[in-house]
Amino acid sequence: MEKNGISRAVIKRLPRYYRYLGELLESGTERISSGELSQRMNVTASQIRQDLNNFGGFGQQGYGYNVEYLYNEIAKLLGVDKQHNMIIIGSGNLGQALANYTNFQKSGFVVTGLFDNNEKLYGKKVRGIEVLPMERLEKFISANHIEIAALTVPKSEAVKTAQMLVKYGIKAIWNFAHTDLDLPKEIVVENVHLSESLMRLSYNLIRTEDCGSV
Amino acid sequence: MEKNGISRAVIKRLPRYYRYLGELLESGTERISSGELSQRMNVTASQIRQDLNNFGGFGQQGYGYNVEYLYNEIAKLLGVDKQHNMIIIGSGNLGQALANYTNFQKSGFVVTGLFDNNEKLYGKKVRGIEVLPMERLEKFISANHIEIAALTVPKSEAVKTAQMLVKYGIKAIWNFAHTDLDLPKEIVVENVHLSESLMRLSYNLIRTEDCGSV
Repeated sequence: MEKNGISRAVIKRLPRYYRYLGELLESGTERISSGELSQRMNVTASQIRQDLNNFGGFGQQGYGYNVEYLYNEIAKLLGVDKQHNMIIIGSGNLGQALANYTNFQKSGFVVTGLFDNNEKLYGKKVRGIEVLPMERLEKFISANHIEIAALTVPKSEAVKTAQMLVKYGIKAIWNFAHTDLDLPKEIVVENVHLSESLMRLSYNLIRTEDCGSV
Repeated sequence: MEKNGISRAVIKRLPRYYRYLGELLESGTERISSGELSQRMNVTASQIRQDLNNFGGFGQQGYGYNVEYLYNEIAKLLGVDKQHNMIIIGSGNLGQALANYTNFQKSGFVVTGLFDNNEKLYGKKVRGIEVLPMERLEKFISANHIEIAALTVPKSEAVKTAQMLVKYGIKAIWNFAHTDLDLPKEIVVENVHLSESLMRLSYNLIRTEDCGSV
């Protein structure tokens, strides 16, 4: 259990609850029963009730849950009720793809800077944001109070770039390089290891095929 | 437990074992003790011994594990000992970024086709692979025996594109669209929900900051 009494398993489901509730809000749904949410989430209704109790979602028998209330409570828990400025280090295809994702901005993550050490990219604009040379990183971070950096540099440069980011004041790194960053404990690292995801896919694929041939 | 007796938790660690063992192989390490592997993996040595026993990795007291043997066994389990041809549907920044990742190819995932419905992209080449119009998808899949498709189209087109892929014979979808695909059970879907990853980062970041201010 975490210090606020919410288990890791629930926390893992929070972004999904947030997504579903957001879709319900957009479609104008004001209330939802645990049964309906259960069908969408592919989780049992009793699990849903247990989960939502954790963050003040007390459904009323016959009335269900207030969608907007739950949505806002989960937003606060996730820290997406406020704006987070984010920079992207490595402005190749992946960095540019992230900068182009308007969805992140809807959840409060606003890309305010793009950096690269390839001078051919300097001045290139993605959604109005100019790619800047790495030399301007330190000042940019402190002037704009940036806490989050997405790291989309090649694996070979990831560790030293991450250390530099921490030295300049970055508190959380969204790491796309397939390597361990080995940073101080207080730095938040969220890894997106695409190769590992692809291996899980392949693991499941060969087992599905085994079943098919039996 | 899965039918072959390996638990889900172990399976989740397999890609990481594979990565570490691969790095050890590259650096010329022939044998490794559970203690050394434990330090790298951030898992207890006894957990490592338990895990590796699952796939025939019986270390010898004082000699440790044979790195190459374990690496090959895990490769077989993950299905990365063979080549998998993969196509990418949606050839924007993200699709191009995936096509450019040489790392996937090292694990046997070879991008052989890129597709898009934006005619401005037709003919554009990424690592020698030409972007083709969606009209050529069906023939391409059957002619090249493609089983895996990465889905990097906008959220609004994801569901119908996925259904089309399944109709054309695709067995596994690597889904980057932030939505549920709702496909037949036998289709493997591996989701990469970047927004959810970013929310976990933010969840952890605000808690780290809380601690700092206490």
